[in-house]
Parts: sequence; structure tokens; C-alpha cells
Amino acid sequence: MKIALAQINVIIGDFEANTRKILDYIARAKAQAADLVIFPELATTGYPPRDFLEFTDFIEKAEKSIEQIKKATDDIAVVIGTPTRNPVIEGKDLYNSAVFLYQGKEIYRQHKTLLPTYDIFDEARYFEEATQWQTIDFKGHKIALSICEDLWNLGNENPLYTINPMAKLMPQQPDFIINVSASPFDYTHAKERIRVLKENVKAYQIPVFYVNHVGAQTDIIFDGGSLVVAPNQSVHTEMPYFEEALKIVDLDDVKTNTANKEQPKDKIPLIHHALVLGIKDYFGKIGFKNAVIGLSGGLDSAVTTVLATEALGKENVRVLLMPSQFSSDHSIKDAEDLAKNLGIRYDIVPIKEIFESYLQQLNPLFEGRDFDVTEENIQARIRGNLLMAISNKFGNILLNTSNKSEMSVGYGTLYGDLAGGLSVIADVYKTEVYELARYINRNKEIIPINTIQKPPSAELRPNQKDSDSLPDYDILDPILKLYIEGRKGPKEIIAQGYDKALVERILKMVNRNEFKRHQTAPVLRVSPKAFGMGRRMPIVAKYLE
Amino acid sequence: MKIALAQINVIIGDFEANTRKILDYIARAKAQAADLVIFPELATTGYPPRDFLEFTDFIEKAEKSIEQIKKATDDIAVVIGTPTRNPVIEGKDLYNSAVFLYQGKEIYRQHKTLLPTYDIFDEARYFEEATQWQTIDFKGHKIALSICEDLWNLGNENPLYTINPMAKLMPQQPDFIINVSASPFDYTHAKERIRVLKENVKAYQIPVFYVNHVGAQTDIIFDGGSLVVAPNQSVHTEMPYFEEALKIVDLDDVKTNTANKEQPKDKIPLIHHALVLGIKDYFGKIGFKNAVIGLSGGLDSAVTTVLATEALGKENVRVLLMPSQFSSDHSIKDAEDLAKNLGIRYDIVPIKEIFESYLQQLNPLFEGRDFDVTEENIQARIRGNLLMAISNKFGNILLNTSNKSEMSVGYGTLYGDLAGGLSVIADVYKTEVYELARYINRNKEIIPINTIQKPPSAELRPNQKDSDSLPDYDILDPILKLYIEGRKGPKEIIAQGYDKALVERILKMVNRNEFKRHQTAPVLRVSPKAFGMGRRMPIVAKYLE
Repeated sequence: MKIALAQINVIIGDFEANTRKILDYIARAKAQAADLVIFPELATTGYPPRDFLEFTDFIEKAEKSIEQIKKATDDIAVVIGTPTRNPVIEGKDLYNSAVFLYQGKEIYRQHKTLLPTYDIFDEARYFEEATQWQTIDFKGHKIALSICEDLWNLGNENPLYTINPMAKLMPQQPDFIINVSASPFDYTHAKERIRVLKENVKAYQIPVFYVNHVGAQTDIIFDGGSLVVAPNQSVHTEMPYFEEALKIVDLDDVKTNTANKEQPKDKIPLIHHALVLGIKDYFGKIGFKNAVIGLSGGLDSAVTTVLATEALGKENVRVLLMPSQFSSDHSIKDAEDLAKNLGIRYDIVPIKEIFESYLQQLNPLFEGRDFDVTEENIQARIRGNLLMAISNKFGNILLNTSNKSEMSVGYGTLYGDLAGGLSVIADVYKTEVYELARYINRNKEIIPINTIQKPPSAELRPNQKDSDSLPDYDILDPILKLYIEGRKGPKEIIAQGYDKALVERILKMVNRNEFKRHQTAPVLRVSPKAFGMGRRMPIVAKYLE
Repeated sequence: MKIALAQINVIIGDFEANTRKILDYIARAKAQAADLVIFPELATTGYPPRDFLEFTDFIEKAEKSIEQIKKATDDIAVVIGTPTRNPVIEGKDLYNSAVFLYQGKEIYRQHKTLLPTYDIFDEARYFEEATQWQTIDFKGHKIALSICEDLWNLGNENPLYTINPMAKLMPQQPDFIINVSASPFDYTHAKERIRVLKENVKAYQIPVFYVNHVGAQTDIIFDGGSLVVAPNQSVHTEMPYFEEALKIVDLDDVKTNTANKEQPKDKIPLIHHALVLGIKDYFGKIGFKNAVIGLSGGLDSAVTTVLATEALGKENVRVLLMPSQFSSDHSIKDAEDLAKNLGIRYDIVPIKEIFESYLQQLNPLFEGRDFDVTEENIQARIRGNLLMAISNKFGNILLNTSNKSEMSVGYGTLYGDLAGGLSVIADVYKTEVYELARYINRNKEIIPINTIQKPPSAELRPNQKDSDSLPDYDILDPILKLYIEGRKGPKEIIAQGYDKALVERILKMVNRNEFKRHQTAPVLRVSPKAFGMGRRMPIVAKYLE
């Protein structure tokens, strides 16, 4: 039996285009004589559809997609994820289902049992969990159908769920497992996914065919990497990362070919690829082509600009250089060098005169108070206004260049350098931004070496350095990571050898600046714990403050 | 038996202050010879604690609070909501529990069964549901203990849950029900809450003692309104809205005194009171005293300024009047009149010169293009920058003045008039803002009548009116309400008699502007469906676009 894995990139709620793409992949699978083609979880709607699921109209449109897809199943079976309605009055109104379509009919409908409700996931918000499990007979084979998380309660020290749907299916002696997934990228995830699938194969001794989404949905990036794991726990097939693809796999070959064919999973190249796709899909899916970025001569805006240029093409990225009286001589030069290396348009718009016109109006109100963070923020917000003016006049989306370290501690100006439609590297700590820069320069100097080597500075007052108000990033980042990714409290972090006063100061900064993160752009998620929907913190609170 | 209802206002994560307050209320209940005092759901931590619950350190602190509270229960029983740990390895690590403390010991621990996971609620994210239910014997009475939602699966046409914890407790023949709650305000909720409690009393024929939080937690406002419902389904006691209070109720009196004592529940006065408390607690709980607001002479900023003045006192509110060349003559006068009526400080900061300094820098880049929304936005962002400068220099929090109608359709400038630390009226449609204004003026003219009567305008280009680009609010608001609160699709809205092209245009505007709402301040929630955590929409999507 030939099984096709259709790793597709859909647009949330774009039923027409999504259905067209699904039909196209079905046709391609048929052309390659596949018996069965598998699509990802909620492939009709895109993932995550969020509260669109509460609209009956939205569900009806998904049902209509399935009706259209059914018609293409005359001589090929299709397994596809889609929301279905719960006919029972009690409980949530929907199921997250995988339907098995063949010869124009729905043969079987398996609902998802384990509904992830953590980090970015909200499935218990919408779906009722399955209470019935049945294998499917198809061309002499018995298939166990599962949806994403259904395979993830195995091999964990602290299982999240009290039941295991596969344990319900195994007594029916299936020949293989199909898993339709929407399992987003983070730099640990591809490895973890393989570990979990191998645990399942180890437990049940049958192969798994796993199909994942690819593509970015605003902040959430799906990396694809769809898999076939053979009964001996080797990876028979791993589909490409960050690309749409169709792959035909012969079931017999899976049983006999025991070679392990995994792709490399190096953290920085993966992050690099994910961010480029994140930018590309953000623009492509809302129908925009052009970006604008404020290029300071510093590292963060340099890396963001390189990523944007890779994603959108040099003719679609322009930058503004906006020096003030506090900008150092090298800043303009470093920024110009980068723009020239990339071949992108740059304009220089000094902000001194605008800044002075603000001070002229504000000085009577400032009551003779000293220069402080106010004047720093005014400059940052002038830059925000200039960038948004270009954005508004020409339809360029402003990309935000903040990194995760500064986002964590609130080192940034709301409506100033925190402005933008999409935050490209706000899930990348400063120490990782350096690694990204070195990776970008791996073949030749794209980012000027001076940009990488000079001490980081916001240049909003004379001779300012990040290190004036923050510890070195080599110390800051591991503490932040323990708190944000690790969810460790102060005692546990201090126990790892960090200075008590420093740890307490940093955690306080993180918590106090929740209000800023609440108002920033969506952040491309590349770590297991990014700012945004995956990390929900009260704004008004006094924990660790 | 005397039962005390302790309707308290706590700060999320402020264990020290919360515990002190709880001990104080216990002492007061003792002084009034109460046998038992009831506190709200998750009273130790505050509600909603969100992802703080994922920190072991946070849970330990809640446990320490309970240890301290236990010591005060020598001669009074305490029922209080707090997170507890799930000792079983499978499933979520926590329960949302109510503990019954007496004579220094924990007598019983009831876990919550029905975990709301919709709108602003995320309880399935953190908690495992109860699987055991036991009544408590206390001083000759049998008590059924429940937590908030546990009583809410009754009397609904479309019940959200498949089980009903009260049905598990009833065979044990309890004498009364205690319900510890965290049930946030919206203008429909006080009435709905009474309906649901009455349904329970009707079903089980025993009284209910219901204790709710009071106070605002960022965007979510708890109104209190704790209740005792007598066996004949009359409201024996309804505690005040929007105030902390302790009330002692005699159980015998509940059984014999059948008078119905409900408070008025008029929508506009409730919204008014809620918004004032929302502002007051936002400032008070983060330790700020002063607000700054941009006063345009229009209705929204006028209403916001009045509410802020009520919440913070006239000496703590200042406003900036920032006329441009497009401001009409009456704008400054109307704004000045309001400031004088309120007795608050106002300063006039014209933006014309700053605007011109921007154009001077930008004109070479604008390539001779016409005046468009870009120039409008530059002005709005200059105002945002000026307001934030006052905020930064003097520590005043900027209050955002956008209403729900304009937030819905994206009629506002990101980083401009959408700036601010807290959105005061962004859950109040424009037509309701008019009602609020008339309510504010019910005894005397506080808001200048001209502000109420003139046609709404952003005044960002010559002779601009809202009606140039939006339908009349009398038409717009009902359509928005059907879509946002009602979650009706286009077909259903058109079926109610609205113009097809208009409905489609409006829904598209709502969906396309999700990116703006993603970056705006928390919105004080007063309706059943506010922007923010209660409404989770994809940003990049093509549904109804």
C-alpha cells in the first residue's frame, strides 16, 4: 500500500484557497498511485483557528470543504483533520476530528482525545474529548487514527493526561498508526517529536505515519518535518523542514527498510530558517510585499534586516537610519555598510530637529526637571513615528527588532523601538542573536564585523551602554531562561549559583514590564516559551515585585 | 448558626497583603460571633493568577498562606479558595480547591469539578477536575462545598459540561450549599448569577451561600454582589456591588425570612461604577496615583476624564489639549470647559510646529504623494508622544480613550490615540458612551452639552467627520454587537435586516484590524465579550476578509 504524506501550508479561514490546495495535493497523490493521502490536523481551517471556531458560519464552511474533498476520493482514501460538531447537547459543541474519506463517503470519524491546553494551545476551550475509539479497515489493513497530542502522553515523567487513546485502540490490533498533527516549531521540538513517536512505536510495535503542518500562522511557525517511523524505531522518512511537500511511502518498504534517515537539527540554522519563513508567511498571507526597518547600526536591527531581506527580497526591504545627537560616528557607517552589503534602499532621516521641536513645546511643562528617560523615550518615539509614516505612505510593514533579553526586562520604549507589525527576534536572547549573526556571516561578511563587536547601546543619551543598567548578557540570559523557559522561582535560580540580589532584581524587572509586552507585536515563536499567547501573565500583580 | 460572607479585594500574587486581609476579616467575623466565614475562590492568590500557577514557588506561597490562616481557626471555621497540588502523577499538577479549616486543622478539601475554559477563563490550562465529592459535617449541619462554575451547569439550554458535581453531593443530603466564586462583572452578569443560583435552589431545595471577589484585576472587574438565596428561591441577602464587605447571616433567618432583597441592576450605572473601580484598582494596585489624558473636546476623552477624576480625585488627573491646524474652534473651548467643570489641571500644547518638523524631514521621502492617512497618523502619534512624555516625566499613567465601536473597526492610530496603559471605555460602544455621558450629567452639566451634541470627528483633516468613513453608530453598533457579543456570521446578521454590502464591509474591517487590537492596552471588561483575553482571534487569517 502506498501512503502519501501531504505537508501543506494553509491560511487560517481561507476555505477556498485551502480546499483548492488540498484537492491539488490529492490529484498529485493519485497521479503517483497512492492508495491513501494524509493531511494535517484541522487542515481545512488552518491551525490555530482560535475563536473563529465559535462561529457556526465558520464550521459550516469547514463542512462544505469536506463535502468538496469527498468528491475527489473515488479511487484514493483521504485522511484529514477538520472540526466536527458534537451531536450531544451536553459538553462543548465541537470535536477536533480526523475524517477518513473514501469513494465519496465518510468511512470513519475519529475525535481527538488529548486536548492540549497549555502554552499556545487552547483546545479545551473549544473541543469535547473523544470517548470512542475504533480502528479502520482499509484494503486489508487495520488503521489506528490519532490526532497530534493523542500520541504525546507516552514516555513522560509527569503525564498531563489520565487516559491514553492508543491503549484503547491497541486491543483491536491495528497494523499502523496515522497521526494528523499541528505541532509547532521550537528549536527543541523536532528532536522531541521523534523521541515521542519512537516511544509509541516501541510500545505498540507498529509503524507511525505522522503528517504535520508547515508554514507560519502569525507568531506560530510550523516546521513540517512529517515522519514515518519504522517498527524498529528508525526514522524511515523525515520530510523537509519549512517547506511544503508531498511524499509517497510504501508500507512494505517501511517494514523492511530499517535505515535511519534523520535530518540535522542544529539550533541556530533551524531558528534562522524558521524566522525567514515567519516573515515570509506573515507578509504573504496578508498580501503585503514590503518591509521597513529602523537600522541603528546595532546588532538587533542588522540581524532583523538580513532575515527580512532573505524572506522578502532586497527590492522589498527598505530601512531608515535616524541618527540623533547621541548617535556615535560608527552607527551610521555600520548601518550604511549593511544596507550596501544587502543591496537594499536606505534613507537617512536625522531626528535632532524634530526632537528639539518637542522639547520646545514640552519644556514649559517639564518644570526644569533633569534630562531623564523621558527625553530618551521621546527620541525612540520620533523614530517610531517616522517608520510608521513610511509604513502608512507606502504600505510597508514595520518590522520590530527587539530581542528577547530586552523584551524580558523592559529595556525598550513602548510606541518607539517596540513598535512594529511583527517582532522578528523577540524570542531570541541577545546571546543567541550573536550566534545568529555569526551564522549569517558564515560564508562572508554580511553584517559588518564592527556591528557584532562593539558594545550594545541604545544611544539615547551621551555614551550610553546596555551594561550601564543591565548585567552582561552572558549572565542575564541564563537567569532569564531559567525563569521564562524553566519557570523556576528565585530560590531555585539562586541555588544554581547566581547572585541573590541580581536574581531578585531581574525577576522584578521581568514582572514589572508585563504591561509593555502586552502591547507589542506578535513575536515569532522559536523557543519552547515565547512571549505572547504561550505565556499568560497578569499585568497588575505583586508576585516577586 | 451564623455564617459570615467575606467579599474581599485582593492583589494577585501579593500573598503577604492578601493573608493579612483574610486574617483581618476572620477577626472581624469572630468579633461578630460567626461560626463560619467564607472567602472567595483562589482568595490566597487572587484571580486570575494565570501562568504564575506554573511556578512551584507561587504554589508554595499559597500553601504558606493557608498555614497562617489555619492558625486563626481555633473557634471559627474558614472556607477559602486556594490552589492545591494533585498528588497523582497523571493529569494536571494542580486543583482549584476550597478548603474547610477549623480548630487549626484542614477538615476537608473539595476540588472544583467544572473548570471554565471559555471567554477570559483558562482553568483547564492549570487544573485537574475533581473526581470525589463529600459533604462536610459541622456543628450539626451538613455542608455541600462547591467552587464557582460547579453550580453553573444547571438551567442552560446547551450545558457546557457532561457532569454535575451537585448531583454527586445531593444523595448525602446536605443542609446548605457554599459556593466560593470568582465571577467577573459584565452588565448582564448580576442578573444571570441570581438566575443560576435560584435554579440550584429550585433543584435541590436548600439555601446557597455564595461569596464572590470584588475589585479589578487589570481588565477583569469583580463586582462582589455575594448572595444568600433562601429555600423559597428569594434573595435573602445581596451584598453591595464594587465594595469590600463582611456580612453575617443567620442560617435560621435564611430559612424563615422569605423577603426578596435584590439591588437595582441598571446597565449604565453599573458600567459607570465598574469603570471607576477599574481605574482606581489599576492605579492603586501598581502603586500609581496620577493619570494623564489627551482631551480633544470630543465625547470619548470627556467621559474617560470624568471617570478618571471620580476614581483618582481631581488633584491626580491632568489633561493635555493638543490642537492642530485641523482642530475646530469649539474643540479647545469644550475641552477647557470640561477641565474647569472638573477642577483638573489642563495644559495646551499645539502640535502644528512639531507636525511641520516631521513633514520637513519626511517630504523628501514622500515623493510628492498626496496628503492621506499618513499625515493623519503622524498627528495622532505626536499627541501620543507628548502624552507619554508627561507620563514618563511625572509618573502619570496615560489613559486610553478609545471606544468599542472604533476599536472594532480599527478607527484609531496605533501608537497614537490607541496609546495608553489602560483602555477605559474600549468595551463601551459609542452609543453606550452617549448614555454614559447623559448619566454623568444626570444632576448637572459636567460634560459640556456641545461635546455631546456635535457630530463625532477625529479632526485629523479639514472638516473630517466619523460619518465620512463609518455608518451611523446607531447602525454600526448593533451590527458589531451581533458579530462580537453574539458571534453571528454574516448570513445571520443580514437575516436580521441589515444591508448585505454594509455587513460584509464591517465584518471585514473588524477582522482586518485584529493587529491593532493585539497591541492596545488592556480593556476594562464590562460586556459579555470584551477585546482582550476573552476574545482570541488570529491576526493573519482570511475569514470574512
